[in-house]
Amino acid sequence: MAAKPSIPKGTRDFGPLETARRNYIFDTVRGVFRTFGYSQIETPAMENLSTLLGKYGDEGDKLLFRILNSGDPFTGIDFESYRGEDGSFNAPALSGRLCDKGLRYDLTVPFARFVVQHQNELSFPFKRFQIQPVWRADRPQKGRYREFWQCDVDAIGSRSQLCELELVQIVDKVFSLLGVRVEVKVNNRKVLTGLAEVCGFPDRVVDITVAIDKLDKIGLDAVREELLSKGLTPEAVQVLEPVLTLQGDNASKLAVMRKVLAASEAGLKGLDELEELFGFIGSAGISAPVTVDLSLARGLNYYTGAIFEVKALDYQIGSICGGGRYDDLTGIFGLPGMSGVGISFGADRIYDVLTGLDKFPSEGAAGTRLLFANMGIAEAAYVLPVAAALRGEGIAVEVYPDSSKLKKQFDYADRKGIPFLSICGENEAASSQIRIKDLSSGTETVFSKDDIASMAALLK
Amino acid sequence: MAAKPSIPKGTRDFGPLETARRNYIFDTVRGVFRTFGYSQIETPAMENLSTLLGKYGDEGDKLLFRILNSGDPFTGIDFESYRGEDGSFNAPALSGRLCDKGLRYDLTVPFARFVVQHQNELSFPFKRFQIQPVWRADRPQKGRYREFWQCDVDAIGSRSQLCELELVQIVDKVFSLLGVRVEVKVNNRKVLTGLAEVCGFPDRVVDITVAIDKLDKIGLDAVREELLSKGLTPEAVQVLEPVLTLQGDNASKLAVMRKVLAASEAGLKGLDELEELFGFIGSAGISAPVTVDLSLARGLNYYTGAIFEVKALDYQIGSICGGGRYDDLTGIFGLPGMSGVGISFGADRIYDVLTGLDKFPSEGAAGTRLLFANMGIAEAAYVLPVAAALRGEGIAVEVYPDSSKLKKQFDYADRKGIPFLSICGENEAASSQIRIKDLSSGTETVFSKDDIASMAALLK
Repeated sequence: MAAKPSIPKGTRDFGPLETARRNYIFDTVRGVFRTFGYSQIETPAMENLSTLLGKYGDEGDKLLFRILNSGDPFTGIDFESYRGEDGSFNAPALSGRLCDKGLRYDLTVPFARFVVQHQNELSFPFKRFQIQPVWRADRPQKGRYREFWQCDVDAIGSRSQLCELELVQIVDKVFSLLGVRVEVKVNNRKVLTGLAEVCGFPDRVVDITVAIDKLDKIGLDAVREELLSKGLTPEAVQVLEPVLTLQGDNASKLAVMRKVLAASEAGLKGLDELEELFGFIGSAGISAPVTVDLSLARGLNYYTGAIFEVKALDYQIGSICGGGRYDDLTGIFGLPGMSGVGISFGADRIYDVLTGLDKFPSEGAAGTRLLFANMGIAEAAYVLPVAAALRGEGIAVEVYPDSSKLKKQFDYADRKGIPFLSICGENEAASSQIRIKDLSSGTETVFSKDDIASMAALLK
Repeated sequence: MAAKPSIPKGTRDFGPLETARRNYIFDTVRGVFRTFGYSQIETPAMENLSTLLGKYGDEGDKLLFRILNSGDPFTGIDFESYRGEDGSFNAPALSGRLCDKGLRYDLTVPFARFVVQHQNELSFPFKRFQIQPVWRADRPQKGRYREFWQCDVDAIGSRSQLCELELVQIVDKVFSLLGVRVEVKVNNRKVLTGLAEVCGFPDRVVDITVAIDKLDKIGLDAVREELLSKGLTPEAVQVLEPVLTLQGDNASKLAVMRKVLAASEAGLKGLDELEELFGFIGSAGISAPVTVDLSLARGLNYYTGAIFEVKALDYQIGSICGGGRYDDLTGIFGLPGMSGVGISFGADRIYDVLTGLDKFPSEGAAGTRLLFANMGIAEAAYVLPVAAALRGEGIAVEVYPDSSKLKKQFDYADRKGIPFLSICGENEAASSQIRIKDLSSGTETVFSKDDIASMAALLK
């Protein structure tokens, strides 16, 4: 037992400072979500494996943390029957027998499950947010954890672009409150479908998008090469060319695309959606730049309309938010035809951005403001009602529990960053006074012990 | 896939109303903890099984949720070698081989692990709180869940009774803010040890405490019988008698106990602690009644000093908070001699008490205040900047996303309990007006669209 204890790899402890900073992020997003009428829900950490399996692809299934059934799950299992002819175990089948629950892998599938299970209690469009940890048995590496927090906001049950607008407004408001300049990039899956259609390769959406994405890095000629190498004809590449060299503001980009996509119903529908969204953005007044970016390839296999990504402008890091519209989220659980749109805030990356840009508020305001030094039992009893009254004013106050050497008590104040110290001994008690020292300036102020208002004014 | 989805037994979904109410409880305790200088920390949901096993007794070990190792944990296992001669499996050994992580069972052991692991980063006394779910594979029943939230506040690294006082102050403040009248019951493990000593049966602490606990229910004679049946002598029972019939206020109770315990060092030390605590309670000013109760038997096998329990006075339910002092919490992880004291708030029971006493604040204040009905794209664009400006005033405002029939939009407002509705059509847009209807009174007010301040005043 003497070995220093540790935690599972890929997991983290959050100490006082980290927790306060994480709460600052969560409280900020929560406050913004609330003003847009989104309600918070919470789902269990464990879901039935039948809810989770098959929703994240084969790779995702492997990354699920499975929970051993309670009781004695081994009894009655013929382990040898799970062994193949080559002697290897059929691990999924055996773990399926031993485990029927798994840890939440994301917040989207539990949300879909929640909506279907509680459909009769909800009013649609249902606007919810959810801030909870998720678990993935990924190989841990810098910035990638096995337990991490997602912060998802979704509106389900409406196809209106006003829902997309709200997400852009929410992103704009959150990062303006956090003091981080961001750019919101918008794409539309239907436009990408349209591009693949008009160049005659409707099944090459991913190849085309990936090539467009490389334009900045490798240049137009290399992108042409890549498209040809993927099997597109020179004619097809020529059709795409105006899109590859797209420039100017959103309106000019959309105008070029409207010409290119003239023959694609899906493409034109996607453009209509984008234009409606940008119309609303113009009306609502958004401070962050919002730009059309055809290279956004996020979630191509499940998003059906808008695709979003948010980048910090003053800090190098991957996208800090992402999301999009999905037309049939709840169909897998037996409730078809529910269109929704959502966005997820990446708490860890936002934390890194705020740290990197030094944008966290100082802890001072929320932490303990005043430490009453402990000069003995009688003196502690003297300051207790004063401490209680100051707390009643919302000020965080501590009374040091032991009458240790003053040096030790000073050190405690110092390490906790407590800005004011009060040393009240026999003399102060005899004269009904409270002496408070500002530890940064060294100034001492003496108050009547009943003058809580003046003490509060100094400490706030 | 068409079967209606469900969640594992013993777990719960929390919808918008429940989550808002739970947040109200958590935000209240968090705010109080903060004013006493306690810092929030968070630990991972998963701990190494070596951290958890053996800390909760054999029964507890069985109730741990174990997580199957990722990858293929079955390869190389000779399952038959885990089978005993009677054919039964050695389940703990086999699951030990398959699983090296488990879900957090409480917040105390992870806290002890945290303190030892991070001892060099912390300043002692370390005052922390933690609000997180824990998991136990208990048989689910009414009021008992497999996933539930604990809300623990502890101070570690001081033996001062000022720490006990703070916990009593915190309890007093929390329930006064929540509007629930409570009684705080206090016992001391050393006093119980002393009682067992002075009657000559030092190893019968539990039997004696349990018998005292039955006094109200079965009466003095039956308690005497029970003690005799447990093997105590008539002389021993006679020594205890003044304690069994203890009456009056705390001071009289302590005076009687001081006579009975005169020969026990532990007992007198326990009384000194109780008297010091009650002295501080008198100085600090506590509104809830705090009473000495020798029948408190909570945590007899780990608490070493104060024992606390909090009961709601106006609602029949078990204790809603409990805790005590433990002298060697971190010894199991290799850091001996750390005394701490803590208390745990039972979130589920407090929720039930607030529901039963109808003490939750109305949701209205925090929910959406105004719904802008959707009369079409142009009209929506007209109200968008007004909605944004009202949100800037901190007011929750929604714009209905679809231009559905008004009946449907009204229903949405009704189901979400939104008190104000604005219907702005062509006329309002043409005259730069915003029309807001108070849905409970039916009163309509017309504002200039730029007069955000007046609208905010109505809506707040």
